[in-house]
Amino acid sequence: MKGNPCTLADLGEDELLRRLLKLLPPRRDVLLGPGDDCALVKPARSLQVLKTDVVIEGLHFTPELSGLHVGRKAMARVISDFAAMAATPRHALVTLLAPPQTPWLRVRALYQGLLAMAKRFDIAVVGGETSRSAALTLSVCLSGEVAAGRWVGRHGAKAGDTLWVSGVLGGSLRRWHWSFEPRLHEARQLARELPLRAMMDLSDGLRCDLPRLAARCGLGFEIEGKRLPRRRGCTVQQALEDGEDYELLFALDARVSDARVQACAQRLGLRLTRIGRLLPAGQRPTDWTAGGWEPFVKS
Amino acid sequence: MKGNPCTLADLGEDELLRRLLKLLPPRRDVLLGPGDDCALVKPARSLQVLKTDVVIEGLHFTPELSGLHVGRKAMARVISDFAAMAATPRHALVTLLAPPQTPWLRVRALYQGLLAMAKRFDIAVVGGETSRSAALTLSVCLSGEVAAGRWVGRHGAKAGDTLWVSGVLGGSLRRWHWSFEPRLHEARQLARELPLRAMMDLSDGLRCDLPRLAARCGLGFEIEGKRLPRRRGCTVQQALEDGEDYELLFALDARVSDARVQACAQRLGLRLTRIGRLLPAGQRPTDWTAGGWEPFVKS
Repeated sequence: MKGNPCTLADLGEDELLRRLLKLLPPRRDVLLGPGDDCALVKPARSLQVLKTDVVIEGLHFTPELSGLHVGRKAMARVISDFAAMAATPRHALVTLLAPPQTPWLRVRALYQGLLAMAKRFDIAVVGGETSRSAALTLSVCLSGEVAAGRWVGRHGAKAGDTLWVSGVLGGSLRRWHWSFEPRLHEARQLARELPLRAMMDLSDGLRCDLPRLAARCGLGFEIEGKRLPRRRGCTVQQALEDGEDYELLFALDARVSDARVQACAQRLGLRLTRIGRLLPAGQRPTDWTAGGWEPFVKS
Repeated sequence: MKGNPCTLADLGEDELLRRLLKLLPPRRDVLLGPGDDCALVKPARSLQVLKTDVVIEGLHFTPELSGLHVGRKAMARVISDFAAMAATPRHALVTLLAPPQTPWLRVRALYQGLLAMAKRFDIAVVGGETSRSAALTLSVCLSGEVAAGRWVGRHGAKAGDTLWVSGVLGGSLRRWHWSFEPRLHEARQLARELPLRAMMDLSDGLRCDLPRLAARCGLGFEIEGKRLPRRRGCTVQQALEDGEDYELLFALDARVSDARVQACAQRLGLRLTRIGRLLPAGQRPTDWTAGGWEPFVKS
């Protein structure tokens, strides 16, 4: 057990759990946290929201990325999905799969990153699971709530609606993919101030995600490539295809004026750009090929 | 895309998802199922219950085990945790991690096994995640409910309480580990009929799990090895250590008579055996060494 670095195989599962549980702060709406067969929490007040997501070493992050950043990203990705619905996450379950030779200090850093992000968005980690695996894997499941009539899905838009994105796109692999801020507060504010018809967060890249939104609405689309808000030094193609932007893509009734959206953007301190519009089904750019990120096909 | 067997790499993620979603039946309390950023469901009526669990090829099952059985087991394990609290599961998120060369037919069988089990216990799969990995991995997260005052934790027992197990123990690897019936209905019935002080399900083996229950209560324990209800052909040691029993272990006020418990057992059609009792802290069998299943240390 002595010596450095201490690995998960040195600790064994019970000691690993004991150490992980010590990192978790208690919270008043959690009746029963980790350590029992299930977690017990206060229920959602209106509608319950559920989402799970996973990050895997070698696929979503490199072995060189610090544990703090990996943990932060694993939690932030799911929070970004809650943002996409204008919902509020409350409770998390965390599954850690790791090779036995993983140093304890790396696992601790993972949880510290994850818990720092959870704390910032007032999320309690109430349970989870640990097991052995070939690649370090962190799966985060969030449960939360949204008031009936307040949520925004992917499917409510109509032909003619304008398409908007928050922030800037492209070049995420330089730094943004592990340091992004989920647009949680901004999305809820947008949903209060503007009649959002449909919304999603951009994780696989606009070229991949926009057709998904349009398909859910049964619509086509067009965008003006030169209008795309790009990160400094990025080409239009990078803005379309790099992925991991974690920005909001949303559709608005075309009667909502640009000035009204920009006034909202200013209040939020968030850049909002009109990039195109939704069209009747079947109408889409002829040069718009499938692309973006594909987990099951090696590039 | 043609030819046999068709693999996940042949399909790509979008087509894989399209095929998986076709397997999912709709349900009335699910406002928004898979295909959006999050799932949206009716909230728990009293308290919300959350639990996640994972099964990994090579660790929890062999490559020879049929997909139907693997999927069934992945879902049944988490249901068993709900049984341990006398709670009711409602909604599931399913994460599939698989090598790209995995045949589609194996994945379909996994989901069929999983969905058959979900259907039997009236659970709706409302979302999930898929990604590439070295080993086939199925992670199931369940959300459900229990009435306040009706749930049974691991921590409420007192010194002197009697200890009971359901069913028989040991020899689970022959067949039981992939064919067991989670004691969900039985556990809820027990909680209604008997003043259960503490309960858990036996997944790692009594030798591993009983000290966990006792520790949560701050107590010691004693058991009578020869009283252990064993599966045919199993030794006491196997009943203690094989694990994957998925039976209930619970503590009762010693004033509850054996006759009352047995009358309850008869109504449930479930064997219940008094195996020992809880003792003041520190008192435990001298030959009771740690044991059971340890995921991070290779045996």
